[in-house]
Amino acid sequence: MYADGLRAVTFDRVAGKSGASKTTIYKWWPSPGALAAEAYFVTNESELEFPDSGDLADDIRTQLRAFVHLLTQSASGRIIAELIGRAQTDPDLSAAVSEHYTMPRRTLAINYFTQALERGQLRDDVDLELLIDQLWGACYNRLLIPDAPLDEGFADALVKNTIVGAASTTYRSALDRRRA
Amino acid sequence: MYADGLRAVTFDRVAGKSGASKTTIYKWWPSPGALAAEAYFVTNESELEFPDSGDLADDIRTQLRAFVHLLTQSASGRIIAELIGRAQTDPDLSAAVSEHYTMPRRTLAINYFTQALERGQLRDDVDLELLIDQLWGACYNRLLIPDAPLDEGFADALVKNTIVGAASTTYRSALDRRRA
Repeated sequence: MYADGLRAVTFDRVAGKSGASKTTIYKWWPSPGALAAEAYFVTNESELEFPDSGDLADDIRTQLRAFVHLLTQSASGRIIAELIGRAQTDPDLSAAVSEHYTMPRRTLAINYFTQALERGQLRDDVDLELLIDQLWGACYNRLLIPDAPLDEGFADALVKNTIVGAASTTYRSALDRRRA
Repeated sequence: MYADGLRAVTFDRVAGKSGASKTTIYKWWPSPGALAAEAYFVTNESELEFPDSGDLADDIRTQLRAFVHLLTQSASGRIIAELIGRAQTDPDLSAAVSEHYTMPRRTLAINYFTQALERGQLRDDVDLELLIDQLWGACYNRLLIPDAPLDEGFADALVKNTIVGAASTTYRSALDRRRA
């Protein structure tokens, strides 16, 4: 159904596959793009799962590698890019992508990070929402603006830098002294 | 010229403003979107500048706040979002956005990070390209997928986390021991 890209997902084809009348479908979905988004994300719900070995670095690395694999080794990457692309000029589609895809993923990550915080693995003052933008958001950036490669090595380096930071030991000490 | 959004930037209007014939413009630019991208980015070149006080955290914070301000407090945010959005289904536009906007910015940031590395402020093994995705890429993520607010507080927290990381002191020590 998605092999031809988002453009091929029309009301007619969805009506044909689902057995629903076009009138019914028109009544419920705000735009063809939003309909395609819902249909697509419902069939891909299983890759929302989050591992929980108890170790922050290991779990995030596993999840992020799977996400990068999905974006680069299947048709999903181009479909997600097209959906987000079209959402920039289609508020209904933007709402559908958020409701059915990005917000559920964000919630799962926040739940995981909350547990990591309770296990004492994260700084007490860290912004959990921000970690999502630094990990998955950085991958979306390379998907949508392909100026640098999106691969497993990038995923691993993202995890390391998000957790331990880019500062040298001496610069980190200098910053700590400045804050004290 | 950009007040009406990208849709209003047509060959006709650009030809009118520039005094060039439509034939000339058609010959040089691959698509109306790519033309709009080039015209837009040439007029906004000054905000490419990068501060250099010698302190990594201060400089990145200044630059990232200015970028967030540009994306949220001017018409630029919607235009950039539309350009990146349309680029997902227009390879010519994707190439134009990269050549005239995102790659020049990436190069300036890499030059700055190279200096910070020489000053001993960054880990020797840090991936400089990745820092761009964790800072500006995270902002593009909130611009394009608006699930969480894009504001100055986000910029400041991004800078801190990119530099010092999210790990608690105890978890960081545990990771160091594991690597040793």
